[in-house]
Formats: sequence, structure tokens, C-alpha cells
Amino acid sequence: MAIPSSAKTKISTASRTLTVEVDALNERGEMLATPIAGEHPLTIYVDKREVVTLMTLGQAPEALVIGYLRNQRLISSIDAIAEVQVDWETASAAVTTRRAIKNLDQRMKKRTVTTGCGQGTVFGDLMDEIDQIKLRDDVRLTESGLYSLLDAVRRHETIYKSAGAVHGCALATLDGERAEILDFVEDVGRHNAVDAIAGLMWLNGMDGSDKIFYTTGRLTSEMVIKAAQMQIPFLVSRSGLTQMGHDIAQRTGITMLGRAVNKHYLLFTGRHRFVKQLAPTMLASA
Amino acid sequence: MAIPSSAKTKISTASRTLTVEVDALNERGEMLATPIAGEHPLTIYVDKREVVTLMTLGQAPEALVIGYLRNQRLISSIDAIAEVQVDWETASAAVTTRRAIKNLDQRMKKRTVTTGCGQGTVFGDLMDEIDQIKLRDDVRLTESGLYSLLDAVRRHETIYKSAGAVHGCALATLDGERAEILDFVEDVGRHNAVDAIAGLMWLNGMDGSDKIFYTTGRLTSEMVIKAAQMQIPFLVSRSGLTQMGHDIAQRTGITMLGRAVNKHYLLFTGRHRFVKQLAPTMLASA
Repeated sequence: MAIPSSAKTKISTASRTLTVEVDALNERGEMLATPIAGEHPLTIYVDKREVVTLMTLGQAPEALVIGYLRNQRLISSIDAIAEVQVDWETASAAVTTRRAIKNLDQRMKKRTVTTGCGQGTVFGDLMDEIDQIKLRDDVRLTESGLYSLLDAVRRHETIYKSAGAVHGCALATLDGERAEILDFVEDVGRHNAVDAIAGLMWLNGMDGSDKIFYTTGRLTSEMVIKAAQMQIPFLVSRSGLTQMGHDIAQRTGITMLGRAVNKHYLLFTGRHRFVKQLAPTMLASA
Repeated sequence: MAIPSSAKTKISTASRTLTVEVDALNERGEMLATPIAGEHPLTIYVDKREVVTLMTLGQAPEALVIGYLRNQRLISSIDAIAEVQVDWETASAAVTTRRAIKNLDQRMKKRTVTTGCGQGTVFGDLMDEIDQIKLRDDVRLTESGLYSLLDAVRRHETIYKSAGAVHGCALATLDGERAEILDFVEDVGRHNAVDAIAGLMWLNGMDGSDKIFYTTGRLTSEMVIKAAQMQIPFLVSRSGLTQMGHDIAQRTGITMLGRAVNKHYLLFTGRHRFVKQLAPTMLASA
């Protein structure tokens, strides 16, 4: 999750302490110091205009802010962002753009009516664009590559393991049969974790078209839309999926696997990119 | 979840088919017909004015709509709602009020800036009111009553067991040491399930002040706020909690238990209402 200092966008590095301990009494009558995940309001201001308040763990707040603006498509390129300054004393993230966002009022109004907590903020707008998404078809994920990814996720130190109550997302690449986790972000909302990955991809100038997106969360409509919007052809979840998540996966042709834990998985869509074989197979290079 | 026909509010009964089957290929190369949870957009119109689009499983859509308006505090009493008609052909819920909602524009504007998917829609407003909440202190939950609740939840037939990808909420009462589930709602968003319970409570004229609220979801800030707003003194989750969920639980004095599965639990706050003893203890009556 290293953010290169050479990035044109100037950002603060204001990670929060991720867990705190509270007392809890268990069934044996023991008082336990129990780690719990942080949750903090963070209000995003774009050019001094209030946009939204997110509740976040605060692991990668600058990337979260940038990814939120990206996935809401309020900003179309990282180059448009001059600076992001997160200040926890005021619970605010001040975003300065290089050029003002056109029609911010109108875009935020559209967002309002399609917003419901846990249901997604960008649904209405994005459905119009799904059919325009073209994902790369010359890349492959092998079964052993998938198992390597699941093993890497399992070995990753996480807030979830210590405190629970968070969702995690990983962006990964395949080096032959060995998966490498490029970024791993956890947050109290599963959409925050996705947005933070999207922000890191912009900050690091990273292309999604040959990557794997892993999430601990469910594959609902918006999760599939966001992965496809990032041009990522492989979407892997530890959890299950919903009907609309499945419909959209079919429409975009994304290779989607659910219930992926240890040596188990269910391959739902985009089967042409998945290779089930024992012999080593390389992820095709461009 | 029976809705009395004597309720003054006229409602449709437009439950959706809750699961569909899709094909999936597993690690043994078998093609499996796999049940997945439904997910459908439902746009709420209040007196022909568009308010929000929720993505929902559609188990109890009328209760969801009413509970959403309740928990957003756009409507202060069930008596204010004359009719709720859900029509899946147009993916709409038409709410007719007995008297127009004052300042709907302004209230919706306030909602916008505090909204982020997975972070909660009502946070900004509700924080102002937390300190005014007084929960009943003359009610008790015994450990055996808790275990009875967890057993009842375990035995309940659920979409989660067949398809996953949903969260469930239950409203329960204690008859001596035996818990009884009054309502059980699942949805693709954990906040939808809470809202649907809130709607059912209004439709059934049910008081929350001696009830137990159970959720499979995490105890984030908004989840605790909603339970307290419904005057429910006991909040039980299978999952963990966040720092702000804990802070708000302390402020409201709610009795909150996390990691509650089988014969395990962690009691975090409001310990004075929890009774750990082997002898039968009744839930105090008013």
C-alpha cells in the first residue's frame, strides 16, 4: 500500500489506529480486553463544498476519498486532483481539484435518489454504462493461481482476525502460478474497502485489466459494477452472491468466483478465462 | 411476520420469490444448480415524490418501505401513512400520506451529505438525539434466555442457509426463560433488514421497550442507533462491533452482546440488565 511520493497528487498520510480494546464479559464470567475495529466519520469536501460523510476504519483515508470520488464518477482522472488533506481533528478530508467539477450539484442530486445504505450509491448512473464495458479476454486465471491467492489472503495479517467487524479487499496479480497481493485494504463498510483500492490504483498508476480483485464481502450488484468499471476481469469472493450481482456479471462477462476458501470455489460466470488444469499455465501477457 | 388486516394503513403484500438457481462449476468440476438470493431495485415515492432506490431481497417490501421512512425519520407515526403499494413491474413503492411531510426537500438534502453506502444514511441527524434516548431499566435478559434465543435463531429456516449473501434480523420476546421470535427478516443489505423490522413493529403496533433485537450483522454505529431509537434495550449480534458502535451503546446504556453463537457471547455494555445465573429468572414485567 506504499503510495509513491512521486505521484502528482499531494496527499496527507493520516492513517488511524485501527483497533482499540474494550472490556467484555464472556460466558465463563471472565472480563476480557477485546480488540474492536475503529469507526470514524470522515466528511469529504471538494473545493470547500461538502460532498458526503463516510464512516471508516481510517486505514487508507486518502485513497478512500480518491476512490470514492472515482467510483461515484465525480472525478474522471487522478490528474484532476491536486491535493487531498485528511485531518482527523476536524474529521474532514479537503480535496482540491485542478479544475472545478462540472454540474456537481446536479450529480449529487442524482446520487441522492439512488442512495440507500448498504444498497449502493452509484447504482442508477452505472446501469446505463454497463453494456459499454469491455473486459480483456486474453488473460487467464488458473486453478492453482486461485489457490495461491486464497492462501496469500489467508496468511495476510488482518484487522478482521483480531477484531472482526470489517470487510477486506485485495488487488492481486499473478506471477506464473503464484499470486501476489499488491494492495489489501479493510474497512467497516465493504464499499469503502473497494473504493480505497480504486483510489490506490489511481495513485499508483495501476491498470486493472490483468488483475484479480478479491473481497471478503458479498457479490452484490454494486460490487460487480465497481470491479468491472475498474476493468478488472477476475472477481473472487469468500462469500456468496445475489441475483443482480450474477446478472451484471453475465452482462459484463467478468470471471466471477464465489465461496472461494481454501481449495473450494464456485465459478459462476466468465468461465472462458478460468483454467482448471494441473500443469502450470501463465497468465497471458499483453 | 403476519400483518394484521385491521391495521389502519392499507398495504399490498408483494413478497418476491427469494432465491433463484444459477449454474456454477465447483472445484471437482461438477456443475451445480446453486441457489442465490434475489436482489431487486425498489424506488420509494412518497406522495408521488421520488425519495430513494433501495436494493432489496423483497421479503417484506411494504414493511421495508415503512421502516425506511421511520428510521430516516421522514415520518413520525404509522398513522401518517394511508397506503403503501409495491408494484414490482415498475419496481416502485407508492406511499400515500394522510398529511404531506413538511420540509421533505430540506430533510432529503440533509440526508445526502451524511450518506455513504455501507456507512449509514441517518448518522448526522441521529447523533444529535442519542443523548435524549432513555431505555427501560426494569427489564432483564438471563443467560439461559439468551441461549434460548440463539437456539431459536439457529433453528429458524433462512435464506442465508440456502443461498447466503443476506443478513438477518429478528425481533424476539422472552416468555420466562424461553425466547420467542416475533419477526425475522432477511435482506441483501443489513440496514434493510433492520428497517423492515421497524416497519413491522409499526404495522403490528408493537412496543420495543421489553424486546430483544438480534442481528447477524456487525454492530456499527447506525445499527446501535436504530435499535435504541426503537426503544429496544437488548441488542444481540452474531458478529463483532466497531468502536463507534461501542461508544454509542455506552451513551444509550443499551445492553449489547456480540459474538453470540451457541453457548458463547461477549457482553459489552448495559451489564445491569443481564443476569448470569442458573436459576430461572423472569423478564421483569412492567
